[in-house]
Amino acid sequence: MSDVLENLARVLEARKEADPETSYVASLHAKGLNKILEKVGEECTETLLAAKDAEHTGETRDVVYETADLWFHSLVMLSGFGLGPKDILDELASRFDLSGLEEKASRNK
Amino acid sequence: MSDVLENLARVLEARKEADPETSYVASLHAKGLNKILEKVGEECTETLLAAKDAEHTGETRDVVYETADLWFHSLVMLSGFGLGPKDILDELASRFDLSGLEEKASRNK
Amino acid sequence: MSDVLENLARVLEARKEADPETSYVASLHAKGLNKILEKVGEECTETLLAAKDAEHTGETRDVVYETADLWFHSLVMLSGFGLGPKDILDELASRFDLSGLEEKASRNK
Amino acid sequence: MSDVLENLARVLEARKEADPETSYVASLHAKGLNKILEKVGEECTETLLAAKDAEHTGETRDVVYETADLWFHSLVMLSGFGLGPKDILDELASRFDLSGLEEKASRNK
Repeated sequence: MSDVLENLARVLEARKEADPETSYVASLHAKGLNKILEKVGEECTETLLAAKDAEHTGETRDVVYETADLWFHSLVMLSGFGLGPKDILDELASRFDLSGLEEKASRNK
Repeated sequence: MSDVLENLARVLEARKEADPETSYVASLHAKGLNKILEKVGEECTETLLAAKDAEHTGETRDVVYETADLWFHSLVMLSGFGLGPKDILDELASRFDLSGLEEKASRNK
Repeated sequence: MSDVLENLARVLEARKEADPETSYVASLHAKGLNKILEKVGEECTETLLAAKDAEHTGETRDVVYETADLWFHSLVMLSGFGLGPKDILDELASRFDLSGLEEKASRNK
Repeated sequence: MSDVLENLARVLEARKEADPETSYVASLHAKGLNKILEKVGEECTETLLAAKDAEHTGETRDVVYETADLWFHSLVMLSGFGLGPKDILDELASRFDLSGLEEKASRNK
């Protein structure tokens, strides 16, 4: 799954400069930070509701869909600050030593 | 940044079975879905506040930190449903054709 | 300010039975609990953003407007459960001894 | 239910000057706007979860409790801006003509 976030980050970066009339991402940036944050909050709420419904139905399709929306809009927000998924993954890696370096190192032994 | 989410998913899966006394992730699962969703909502709010502060200060350190927290807790939620980052990235890839296959294919021409 | 919440509760109760084509409140109930909760979450996010903006501009007009939206949609939610503002105010009064009975009693002395 | 919000507003105003060591409200103001907004967001999430649980159990006790928490913390936020429940109720009244004046006027006919 390695390339997806890198590719998505590239797409988001390119669309910052796109026409707000034809690009959803460009239209979000044109409306400004509050509009982007409203979408992040909205998708978070929808994720919570989807998870509560899945608790009873066992059907997780919407949990995946809404979490993807949440991640997507948080990536749009990051992009507006000149940040990207690498910043988030580096932060997560530093907390959990998930860089894979340890594993690779031990394989070399 | 490829390995981080895979490695994190493995860690989260393993910690589902860990001792709630010593593992934060296990303690969240022991408290149940509502507790995990409260954390997702909490980290979303903190992400919004960090972004609003960054708008004025230009300092984005907390935006990265809180977004990492948001993604982390949404991964804990997904793990509770037997889902993982691959499900989210597959969903995002399907929306944007981000699988990289197209690009690789065109490079072969 | 006593009558406003009572009157609003009456309006909300009446509109539960109204035509969803012409009544916003009826249209929310017709769409179901998730739609109402999405609105509560949305107005909460907009309240937070308005408050952060007011922190810098000193202009609190939007804080009032968004908080009114938040209270309004939480009253629609309560109404869907057969609850109303009296239930919330009774709960608040019980926490703070705000019933006014104490004050009135002391005035009688 | 008229006096509750007025009395609560008075209590919240008084506690702004209280000792943060002994008053919860004073401790929130001492920690600043972000802390107060985190609580508003947190109580909103807990309201949504309580409502989703009530949808299945029919038990609405927690819906009342969490909505009271949400209103309470939004009143603390308002108080920090020099605003109070009257501002919210005036806004709601202006939207719905809920001032009661119309009804009283027609009764005089």
